[in-house]
This record gives sequence, C-alpha cells and structure tokens, in this order.
Amino acid sequence: MSIDNMASNAKRASIKLAAASTIIKNKALKAIASQLKARQKEIIEANTMDLIRSEKENIAKPLLKRLKFDEKKISGVISGIENLININDPVGSVQTATQLDEGLELYKVSCPIGVIGIIFESRPDALVQISALCLKSGNAVLLKGGSEAMLTNRILADIITYASDMAGIPEGWIQLLETRAHVGEMLKLDEYIDLIIPRGSNEFVKYIMDNSNIPVLGHADGICHCYIDSTADTGMAVDIAIDSKTQYAAVCNALETLLVHKNIAKSFLPAFKNESDKKDVVLVGCEKTVKILDIPGASEEDWRSEYLDYKLSVKIVENINEAIEHINTYGSGHTDTIVTSSFENAAAFMNLVDSGNVFWNVSTRFSDGFNYGFGAEVGISTNKIHARGPVGLDGLMIYKYKLKGKGHIIADYSQGRKSFNHRKIQQ
Amino acid sequence: MSIDNMASNAKRASIKLAAASTIIKNKALKAIASQLKARQKEIIEANTMDLIRSEKENIAKPLLKRLKFDEKKISGVISGIENLININDPVGSVQTATQLDEGLELYKVSCPIGVIGIIFESRPDALVQISALCLKSGNAVLLKGGSEAMLTNRILADIITYASDMAGIPEGWIQLLETRAHVGEMLKLDEYIDLIIPRGSNEFVKYIMDNSNIPVLGHADGICHCYIDSTADTGMAVDIAIDSKTQYAAVCNALETLLVHKNIAKSFLPAFKNESDKKDVVLVGCEKTVKILDIPGASEEDWRSEYLDYKLSVKIVENINEAIEHINTYGSGHTDTIVTSSFENAAAFMNLVDSGNVFWNVSTRFSDGFNYGFGAEVGISTNKIHARGPVGLDGLMIYKYKLKGKGHIIADYSQGRKSFNHRKIQQ
Repeated sequence: MSIDNMASNAKRASIKLAAASTIIKNKALKAIASQLKARQKEIIEANTMDLIRSEKENIAKPLLKRLKFDEKKISGVISGIENLININDPVGSVQTATQLDEGLELYKVSCPIGVIGIIFESRPDALVQISALCLKSGNAVLLKGGSEAMLTNRILADIITYASDMAGIPEGWIQLLETRAHVGEMLKLDEYIDLIIPRGSNEFVKYIMDNSNIPVLGHADGICHCYIDSTADTGMAVDIAIDSKTQYAAVCNALETLLVHKNIAKSFLPAFKNESDKKDVVLVGCEKTVKILDIPGASEEDWRSEYLDYKLSVKIVENINEAIEHINTYGSGHTDTIVTSSFENAAAFMNLVDSGNVFWNVSTRFSDGFNYGFGAEVGISTNKIHARGPVGLDGLMIYKYKLKGKGHIIADYSQGRKSFNHRKIQQ
Repeated sequence: MSIDNMASNAKRASIKLAAASTIIKNKALKAIASQLKARQKEIIEANTMDLIRSEKENIAKPLLKRLKFDEKKISGVISGIENLININDPVGSVQTATQLDEGLELYKVSCPIGVIGIIFESRPDALVQISALCLKSGNAVLLKGGSEAMLTNRILADIITYASDMAGIPEGWIQLLETRAHVGEMLKLDEYIDLIIPRGSNEFVKYIMDNSNIPVLGHADGICHCYIDSTADTGMAVDIAIDSKTQYAAVCNALETLLVHKNIAKSFLPAFKNESDKKDVVLVGCEKTVKILDIPGASEEDWRSEYLDYKLSVKIVENINEAIEHINTYGSGHTDTIVTSSFENAAAFMNLVDSGNVFWNVSTRFSDGFNYGFGAEVGISTNKIHARGPVGLDGLMIYKYKLKGKGHIIADYSQGRKSFNHRKIQQ
C-alpha cells in the first residue's frame, strides 16, 4: 500500500475512532495488554533476530541497549497500558458551556486531534506506548520506527492491530511504515496528518522540524541552566547543581550551563568543583571563573552546547538580570532553575525566564511527565503554542464547539429582534 | 532599522511585557483610548490622504470601504479597548496546582506566547484591535498592514507606541513593518516570532501558511455545509439554509453547499428554491437535484468551492453517513450544521463531522467570537492544534510550569529515599 493510501485510511478511521466509546477503547487496551503477554515468546524471538542482525551491522552499543525488548520491558509496557485504562477518557469533556440565548446552547467539548504521525528510533517500547496513548485519546496513528527494530515493530503492530480489531476499534487506525523513504513522504502529508511527534536524537528531531509543514510536538535541544543567586544556601546549591548535571547526564533535562552570582562565586565554586571532581565532570569557565578555578576557558560555542555528557560550562554573572538575559539568549526554553533564598528573585526568575519549566531550589531533572503526575507522557515540548513542557494525554487533544439551537437564525440578532445573553450554564 | 533588529527588539520587550502588571497594562490601554480620541482629527486626515492616493491608484471599491477609518470606526475601536480593560488579565492564572512531595509544589501558570506577527490587509481598525489584544495578553507584536493604509497605520502605531511608553510598557513591544519585502523576511524569523496571525483573503492566508516555518493561526477556506436530515422541520430547514447562505454571503461562515436527505428532497427543495430565488441565489445541483429543480448541474469543482457570493451547490444524499463523509471530504473544518428532529442523528453529526464548529438546528452564521461571548476575537482558526474555531484572548496564551522546592534533588527519588505523592493543591 502507498503511504498516501495508508494515511488516508488512517484519516478515515480517525473520524470513527473520535466517536468510539470509552468502553470499547478500554476493551481494546485490555486486549492489547493480554495479547502482548500471550505472545511474549514470539515478540522476544523477533527482537532477538533484530538484535543479531544489528550486532552484525555493528550498530552502536547504546542503540542495541535501547533496541532490546525483553520480558522486563514487555511487562513495563503492559503495566503502562493498565495505568492508561484507569485514566479518565480525555474525549468528550465539556470545557465550557454557555447559553447564548434562550434555547441556544454552546458547548466547548474536548476531542482528539485526528491523525498523529510518530517517528521514533530504535526503542520498540515507544511503539506500544504511543499507540496506546493514541488509542485512549481517540487518535489514529502512523508509526515509523527504526529499521534495526523492523521485526519487533512488525509483530507489535500486528498484535495491536489484531487486538483492537477484535475489540471493535475502526480498522486502519494504526499504520506501520517501514522504509526510510516513507519518512520523507510522511512529512509532506499535511492533508491527512495533523501532528508529528518525533522521538530520538536532537539532530533527528531538528531534521523533522525543518522539513515538514505539519506541526511538530517535541524538543530539539535541552540546554538547561542553574543560576546560583548571591543569597543561595551553598550546600543546597552544590547538591542541586551536582544532581542536575550528574544524576543522568545523557538526558534533555540535565544541566549544561551553571551561572553564578559574582558575590557567591568565591565560596560556591571551589565547593562545587570539589564535588564535581568526584564525578569526573569536565568544567569550562568564563574569564572570571578561570581566575577562581583552575579549568580551561569556555568559548562562545560552549554557551550554545548541549553536551549530554559529564561536561559543564560555568559563567559568573553580575546580577540576576544578566543570568536571565543569558538564559533567554542561549537557552532552549526547556528547564531552568534558580537557587536563592530571596522570594523576590525567585519570582522574577520564574516570570522572566522564557522556558516551559522554571524552577526554584529544585534540580532541573524534575521536568518530566511522570514526576509531574501526568500518568502518561507524550513527550517534552519546547513549542510556544499548543503544549509546552512535559506533555501528557492533553497534548493529543483539541476541542470543537457544539452549538444546539431550535431553528436560530442570525438575521434575528442583526436586525435587533433578539439579543445574546451569554449566560454560563451550570454543569 | 532592519526587520531582524525590529524582531529581536520585540523579542526582548516581550520578556519584560510578559511580567508587566495588570495595572500598567490597563493604564496603557486607557492611554491609547484617550490618545485615539484626542488625535482623531490627525488620524482622519492621514486616512483621507490614504483614500485619495488609493482612489487615484484605482483600488477596488470594497477595499476602499475597508480602508476608510472615520469617526464611527474610531469610536468602535475605542469602545473595543474599553471592553478589553474590563476583561480579566489572562496572564498568571493558575491552571493546575499539585504537591509532588512534601515542600515540592508544581504550578501550571498561563503566560503570553511571546512575539506575535500580524499581517493584515487594508483595514486600519485591525491594527488597533490586534495591538490592544496583544498588549492585554502580554505579547509583543510585529504589524504589517496594507501599503494603501500606510499613513493611517503610521499614525495609529505612533499613538499606540507613545501612549504605552508613557504608561511604562517596555519599549519595542510594538513594531510597524512597512514594505512588502518585509513580509517575506518576517516569515523566516522563527527565531523571534512565535505565532503569525494573517488577516485577509483566502489566497493571502494560504500564501502565508505555505511559506513560513512559524505556526500560523487562521483559516484559508470556509466551505460550510448545511445538511437537511429526513426528519427536519421543513420551515426551520428553509429558514436556516437561507440565513446561512444569504444573511452575509461574503463571509467565511456563510453556507456554500446544501446537503439534503433523499426522503425530504422533493418537499424541501422546491420550498427552499422559492425563497432563495427571492434573494437571487444561483443554484447548481447534483444529478439527482437537477431532476427535481430546474437548475444547472454541479461539477466536482463546485463541492470544493467557497463562492463567498450568492451561489450555492446542492446535493441529495442517501443518508446521514453520506452527508458526514461528504463534509469531511470536501469541507474545510470551519462550520457545519444539521437540521433534524432526531437527537441521535444530531449527536452523530456533531461527533463525526471533523470541524471546529458543529451545529444542530442553527444557522452557520453563528460561528463568531462575539456571538460566542468571547468579548474579544483574535480570529477564526481551522487548525487542529492549539486553538480551533473562533479564538479569543486564550489563543494568544500558553503556559509554563513553575516548580518550587526546598533543595529537592532527583537522586533521592531514583534511589527510593523519597517518593512522589501528587496531591492536588486546593486553591
């Protein structure tokens, strides 16, 4: 089947899926979970073949680790689906209800976006998670996984298709794309696809963002900052900076640049370096920093770098305004934190830093949908519209206006025979 | 100044404007209203010069009408600003508040999007309205108006800049672009501009949508449908179809295609034609329709046409499903209505038609922010993300997550020393 046909099938299915009942959607999720359990052996066999082939092709170690889909990961995605069943159906909730006039009632009702295109790299768990999220939220989905996971993805898509068909979900709602050429074609199908969610490396996400007219939900860089204000508690500041940088250095909410108020630099920086040396963090610093610490100088490029590694750039600033200006210039709008005992400075920082997540006396590593209590996470967005920060099921929803009347025509209002009252309807 | 500089100035101002108090923003709005009143004579003089020049350049009559900015229109925009002052500040409202753990509190807080680019054609009122909306919502704005309104736009932008400066709004928040070349450059500035709102003809909006990486809020086509179900009250059906088509034919929520259930066609269609003939509506019909009415046949192109005129395409359908399928195939996701006495059919129609506005027994002409009671209207969107249907001030807002802790680090949670509780904070 051509990708154009697959996408138009998904579009057609999305219309019916948008109106599917909670009972049927949950029945399908249960069926998917039980089929994943029942066919676990087959899945692992397919995955083993993917692993063997990929090893032969000398694929990088971390990629192999992400590709591996074992019993533990399968039971992980199954319990994810079980959680999802217990979450309230996000479709059909009335956000506002207004009586425009006697007998004329306006309802703003949540509904699915339509067709979501997901492009992910090696991890097969992403296929199951995202399909389940789309199903729960009533969205059809086009999936393109990494070719290294081809056999695993194929059996997972088969299982999901079979189980959801049995439960009565409209056929065609899930479509698996397999070739690399499909990605390029997919990015052009704005007629059928309403939103693209890319999961993978920064370069990969950036490529998608730059090459499609379809809205993209996600983030490329995660250049996160920690600003140590003059009134910070030094112990707390060291703990937060160390945790932000080293607790898991390869993730998007890890710290990349440390900003330090000049008045606290001489006491804070040596204490910090003492701890960061224990974790083998490579530091580079601004001109003022290298006068206090024996570390190499940082270049302009460093302020724009997401190391995703045990490396950190350090800058001494004159005041909080310089810190905020630096973050808004070099940051990526992801997550930035201030350590301070001043309520005013914390408020100014959180109001003036233009990022999706702005923290006070907290490690940057907290910005995450599970930590935030969303139950399910679609991804983290640095977009300025629709959904920002960690995105839960809400990010897959939009709304429509339903207006119910009794033969109301606008001529009556334009000619003054009737008028609007705009009364809130109590629900 | 280069447009790049103007945009980066607007970006810088937007950061401060996002944190401006309600008092200062309302003070600025008051100052703008009173300056518009005080300098009314100057405005009308500038506008008269624009009108004279445009007439000499043989600009089309309807355009001249939109260009004219007289006392009545000035007092219209002033009362719009006065309404806006009374609307609650959309910035800073707490959408959710969650205790993640002891002493660790997460707030989802509304904030401005940042920098909005507005491109509008001849109407100078659009400049004032949209600047006022941006100011109230804390967004900076780049404005590009039609060159025919150059002198009027210049004085209006001067007045707004002067009055807002006096009130203490950060300098640079409003920038007026004047040359056509600026539009092309503006569409590339995704580094500074977060959202573009084009106001004008369909071709114009479509051009903007196709030529920018920046998200666009708006609608190109408005191909609206009215479906007359078999159980419709014929009198109500005629009234709604006539009002939808003829009350104001040149607007986006006017009716373009009438769908009629086969069982009601023979009674409804002649009654409808009787009324539509009185309004000189040109009808074209499908093969079945032309057997009942003496009208020309419709082509495939007719189902895709937004006439914006006294012309209507008519199609007889087998059942409600064919009507819904037709709308989802040929419609533009704007506004579609069903006339029926069946609750089930109304519900199916409103659930399955994939449009921002789905109506039951109501004229399509009701889809409008003022009718919906929004107070202020940004535009009508057929987007599937962010904002859909008539868009009020909400469309200019996004949110950020503010997380307040007491030195919380993620290592405590990953190593099991602490755990999240995700308790809702009562507000």
